[in-house]
Amino acid sequence: MRETSFLRHVYANATSSDHVVVGPGDDCAVLDTGGPDLLLITTDQLIAGRHYDPKTTSPELIARKALARSVSDIAAMAGRPTASVCTASFAPADEQLATALFDAMSRFGAEWGAPLVGGDFASGDTTQFSTTVLGSVSRAGVGPVLRSGARPGDLVWVTGRIGASYETGHHLGFTPRHAAGLELRERLGDRLHAMIDISDGLGRDAGRIAKASSVGLVIDAERVPLRVPERGAEVSVADGEDYELLFTTTAGAELPATLGDGTELSCIGRVDAGDAGVRLRLSGGREIDIAEAGWDHGS
Amino acid sequence: MRETSFLRHVYANATSSDHVVVGPGDDCAVLDTGGPDLLLITTDQLIAGRHYDPKTTSPELIARKALARSVSDIAAMAGRPTASVCTASFAPADEQLATALFDAMSRFGAEWGAPLVGGDFASGDTTQFSTTVLGSVSRAGVGPVLRSGARPGDLVWVTGRIGASYETGHHLGFTPRHAAGLELRERLGDRLHAMIDISDGLGRDAGRIAKASSVGLVIDAERVPLRVPERGAEVSVADGEDYELLFTTTAGAELPATLGDGTELSCIGRVDAGDAGVRLRLSGGREIDIAEAGWDHGS
Repeated sequence: MRETSFLRHVYANATSSDHVVVGPGDDCAVLDTGGPDLLLITTDQLIAGRHYDPKTTSPELIARKALARSVSDIAAMAGRPTASVCTASFAPADEQLATALFDAMSRFGAEWGAPLVGGDFASGDTTQFSTTVLGSVSRAGVGPVLRSGARPGDLVWVTGRIGASYETGHHLGFTPRHAAGLELRERLGDRLHAMIDISDGLGRDAGRIAKASSVGLVIDAERVPLRVPERGAEVSVADGEDYELLFTTTAGAELPATLGDGTELSCIGRVDAGDAGVRLRLSGGREIDIAEAGWDHGS
Repeated sequence: MRETSFLRHVYANATSSDHVVVGPGDDCAVLDTGGPDLLLITTDQLIAGRHYDPKTTSPELIARKALARSVSDIAAMAGRPTASVCTASFAPADEQLATALFDAMSRFGAEWGAPLVGGDFASGDTTQFSTTVLGSVSRAGVGPVLRSGARPGDLVWVTGRIGASYETGHHLGFTPRHAAGLELRERLGDRLHAMIDISDGLGRDAGRIAKASSVGLVIDAERVPLRVPERGAEVSVADGEDYELLFTTTAGAELPATLGDGTELSCIGRVDAGDAGVRLRLSGGREIDIAEAGWDHGS
């Protein structure tokens, strides 16, 4: 199933309303509920055998991943998680896991500031989860950080390390980067221009910033921090499931090597006035287009 | 799978937070986001072959039911729907339906005041949907109408008609009662004490009000408005999927036979200081316990 053609239809045909500040197409939708903060909402699903191996994954890690993926979307808007809900269907053999899964999700929700406030569960043919997380972001200052704010001359940065997420188990055990996102907002203010979380591959997600901002991104392969260095940048940028933040800042912006919670920061490239593509500059000087490297996650 | 024992665990072990006004266990959770209104959130899932017959149900009706069930939960709090998100997994044979389903859900979301602002879809082994709907409710006046507000002496009311929802197709084509819920709030103010939407059977859902409020409900079988009169009250109160509002008011409250949008209202019984049960009083004077009549929807 090709997601991109379907999504083009969705984005072109979404109905809106006055209180919808940002509709489908960014990491979260943004709603104006009349309060001091704007409301963020994001939803995602986790399917046994597709997003995790049911034979080897503990209920704790299943619940963690189900919730963490959506919290990561709140992080990508530089928002603060506030609450979560989850639906689950259980194949007969998995029904016994319901309580352990709830307990773990409840614990991670509390830990990440998004208490689990509701849900629904059912028996089904397959085990799968759908998680919705809410967040808040001050309407003052930079507001929600969208994919569309990158400008020619910006620096391109990434948190943590990239690649080999499946092989190393990072895709199950990662901690969503909401604390890092909030610290970046605090440090940078309106010098923080665009942000996305890397779920489908650094290349493809950089391509989403490029397209939404109508700019080009040039990534220096030697500066991409790799989880497994032997794997190389060219492969790693297509791996996906990193759940790191990819963001752009004003050219002059300076950031420390690590944030307060220990999150590593790497400046990996630059924005130019290009054609909405992403070029990975290899060590010999050759450039390859990586804007479609990674998961078309409907496929 | 027995839902009730799992839910006892959930309600006993939910973590909370200062901004969570109502956690798991009512039709919606209620959050305080600092604005003039409180935020409602509810989530539900719709599974092919379980909640609809995939052989005979059009994409339009599938999308309608997926969204309407959650909007009905907003109605049950006397709230106003504000936005929706949906995840979908599609069995291979159903992928072609994605666009038609999105279009229908988008249209119903707009019609019911809950524009579809986000989602996720994936290929899967089964076709199923998970919908989250947000709503708002003024913190002034009666606030969100919970299950726990019924008091001895209250009158018990129901909107519309009860029973035979599957047989008549009502479970697919119903319009959620949010307009009725808002009009009841407007007309009754703090004389509107408790409310729930009937998803699992009038008996079982009345039992939820009785239990949450620590009261008993006595329903007069002859006054229950039946969708198919020949079916009788005793069967109809266990049918479920009515998506009507069941509510209690101060004893003296008067309501018209129909609300502004044509919704019928029926006074069907009374609250007493009983033992958290629900008695259906039959024509001969005999009473039967119906607090567990209907779906234990995990079973």
